[in-house]
Amino acid sequence: MAKEDPETNFSEWYNDIIERTGLTDKRYPVKGLNVWPPYGWKLMRLIDERIRKHFEDFGYQEVYFPSLIPKSQFNKEAEHIKGFTSEVYWITKGGDSELDEQLVLRPTSETAMYPIFSLWIRSHADLPLKTYQIVNVFRYETKQTRTFIRVREIHFIEGHTVHDSYEDAEKQIADDIEIWKRVSEDIAVPYIMGKRPDWDKFPGAYYTIGADTFFPSGRSLQIATIHQYKDNFAKPYEIKFVDENGNTKYAHQTTFGISERLIASIVGIHGDKKGLIIPPRVAPIQIVIVPIPGEGVTEYSREIFEELESIKIRVKLDERDQYTPGWKFNDWEEKGVPLRLEIGKREVSEGKITYAKRTGGKASMPKEEFMHKVNSLLEEIQSELYSRAKERINSYIKPLHSLEGEIDFYPNYVYWCGEKSCANVIEEKTGKSILSTTEGFGKCIVCGREGQKTIISKKY
Amino acid sequence: MAKEDPETNFSEWYNDIIERTGLTDKRYPVKGLNVWPPYGWKLMRLIDERIRKHFEDFGYQEVYFPSLIPKSQFNKEAEHIKGFTSEVYWITKGGDSELDEQLVLRPTSETAMYPIFSLWIRSHADLPLKTYQIVNVFRYETKQTRTFIRVREIHFIEGHTVHDSYEDAEKQIADDIEIWKRVSEDIAVPYIMGKRPDWDKFPGAYYTIGADTFFPSGRSLQIATIHQYKDNFAKPYEIKFVDENGNTKYAHQTTFGISERLIASIVGIHGDKKGLIIPPRVAPIQIVIVPIPGEGVTEYSREIFEELESIKIRVKLDERDQYTPGWKFNDWEEKGVPLRLEIGKREVSEGKITYAKRTGGKASMPKEEFMHKVNSLLEEIQSELYSRAKERINSYIKPLHSLEGEIDFYPNYVYWCGEKSCANVIEEKTGKSILSTTEGFGKCIVCGREGQKTIISKKY
Repeated sequence: MAKEDPETNFSEWYNDIIERTGLTDKRYPVKGLNVWPPYGWKLMRLIDERIRKHFEDFGYQEVYFPSLIPKSQFNKEAEHIKGFTSEVYWITKGGDSELDEQLVLRPTSETAMYPIFSLWIRSHADLPLKTYQIVNVFRYETKQTRTFIRVREIHFIEGHTVHDSYEDAEKQIADDIEIWKRVSEDIAVPYIMGKRPDWDKFPGAYYTIGADTFFPSGRSLQIATIHQYKDNFAKPYEIKFVDENGNTKYAHQTTFGISERLIASIVGIHGDKKGLIIPPRVAPIQIVIVPIPGEGVTEYSREIFEELESIKIRVKLDERDQYTPGWKFNDWEEKGVPLRLEIGKREVSEGKITYAKRTGGKASMPKEEFMHKVNSLLEEIQSELYSRAKERINSYIKPLHSLEGEIDFYPNYVYWCGEKSCANVIEEKTGKSILSTTEGFGKCIVCGREGQKTIISKKY
Repeated sequence: MAKEDPETNFSEWYNDIIERTGLTDKRYPVKGLNVWPPYGWKLMRLIDERIRKHFEDFGYQEVYFPSLIPKSQFNKEAEHIKGFTSEVYWITKGGDSELDEQLVLRPTSETAMYPIFSLWIRSHADLPLKTYQIVNVFRYETKQTRTFIRVREIHFIEGHTVHDSYEDAEKQIADDIEIWKRVSEDIAVPYIMGKRPDWDKFPGAYYTIGADTFFPSGRSLQIATIHQYKDNFAKPYEIKFVDENGNTKYAHQTTFGISERLIASIVGIHGDKKGLIIPPRVAPIQIVIVPIPGEGVTEYSREIFEELESIKIRVKLDERDQYTPGWKFNDWEEKGVPLRLEIGKREVSEGKITYAKRTGGKASMPKEEFMHKVNSLLEEIQSELYSRAKERINSYIKPLHSLEGEIDFYPNYVYWCGEKSCANVIEEKTGKSILSTTEGFGKCIVCGREGQKTIISKKY
């Protein structure tokens, strides 16, 4: 059983539960590099598979570009470099000899991909180009690292598209917002999405849209970003095409980034003091069967196991004999398995299955009926988790009407005119950062001019 | 159409066809680093999925360890280090500052994993531990690089197991040989497997088993290796366990390595002067439909497409209107799609499907019948490819009875006593290397003493 309660002591609870359940092993001897043990890696891979499906449903194709980028190629887009230069790893030696040209370990792949895109793209017929890759990227983080949240080797899913116009790139961004919505549904994680203020956009981007979710700690976590690049990268990397009229033009580009922070959000948003709750769609183990020793129980449990496996349920039969059923219940609850079957003598004699949902609630039904309903039962848990998380997050975020008086730790909605000077006042008086602006207008909480609905929060 | 014939001009044919068909893009500006475009990456991913299945059927679990290894940890096993030290990339800087401890970009993952294994393993109950990971590893190759064969960023599948005894590790090696057999069947690539001579074993291993395949060029390519480590790594990395009797012992280990060379072998062994032939089990496109314009053809082709997609065939409908059917036939033949459907007026009116196998042969049958048979048709192509490849490879390898007289470029079987001095004579007189020893005994071709059947070959 977890030692802490996420509602009262989130940070300790988080650090403890992710290691205790086998999502990570933090004992690797380099700061910010963690080991993915089987359970955590399986979860990440199942999430990746869902993401692949959504990307490909929207016409993206998967590619894989090299991890190492030559210095000269990396240095082409000035703003981008400025944003990354303090946090890249440099490879300077191969074997015993100094390299002729130093290599950067990719912090993101723009500078690896775009020189090649400029070779792939010749005419408007080559556009749009929609690619994504699932890779590890590296950032020499100087801030405090935290597993799945701020690490030095990041599991990164990056979409890169190229278009013949700004408008077509804008359409892509609408598609990406829809892809992101589907991903978030798979992990049952609600979010607020909006435009980042100018000073917080991605280095080199024209604008950045961020999706943030919120933890019981009161802090927000950025879990997806979508960037409109305009032709900011096309110019230095010479990504040009010949249009229908024979004119050569610079292309427009977008990118889309998601990372292992999805796992942080599953842990932080669904977890409770018993441990993790993993949404069924991505759970490494969707159903665990715990036999309660008795006549015929072993055979009946195995029969159920095989039946579930044959309909592609990710099922585990826990036959360890050194543990009691009660101990196993706790163990699998802690690991967040969404559905547990308890199989004893009575289930055998009545041909029934007794199940307990990790979201609460226990019932029995005839085996046949259960097999018939199992997928909808899992989807039921998925939506319970989702709506519970929505309620929870909505309860954290309150409108803030005045900067005077006591201000609590949780995120707020304010109206803000867009001026940096007013942002400074808001950030200073609340101790929170401007996250993003969304739909809705009102008077700026600082200057009283027309402002946009803006979410502010303490950030990870 | 490919410019060369693999039988007469293999190297040029290979270099041309892999880029022309979209398996790779070699224009990345760092030697030995190539770009994986969609077609090549999809092929690699489909192969990876087959490998995952086989590993997991044998109880392996997937993990992911960090890419960066601290120098002190890397330096623990002396022989291993000696073997790799001239070909590792060193990360010496993070941002603008020198790192306190230099990091190696993993050339293989023993030294990343084993310090953690020593934490995971406490007692005999924790054994065997069977893990694998699919990662990229890096080698600062000084030799000539060649796509999919010798590169600096390698797509690597590595199995790592830990056992309570040498005997249990030996059993694992038998399992690994079976896993490898299944992988080779999926890509329809025959091989010869045997023990490497002592001087050619993996740095740090007790012994190494290698699987080699053979190209029309006459050269051999190592495509899988399995290593018995004994306790050679367990000692420096302190991987110990308490046995049933309470005694602390060192563990025994094995590893298993496969790489993107599987793609090289698919290209080299199945290809012909028309282009690639990709085995159906791993083909990114298993079936292409080429409509031959005419009344009702579009609708009928789309109907076939949807029907095939609904039964999980990886199918492509080529509706490009700027190309003739004949041009498309050549294009998909070159890309190695194993089965092509030709749909014209006659097919529409007769409710039939005309198909052409990339391995040769054309026929027609009613659509219903085709849908019923399509999977066995694909498996038929798979086995045709496999048996054709076996014949081809068997025809390359001839016994060699004397080292005098003319010796051709192709691999041979010889008998060899196991002495390095005799090996030197064999290698010098034939210009070929000792690959491995297998079942079979006879007189050593050099000294006449009892020897083992040994395969010799020019190597990539």
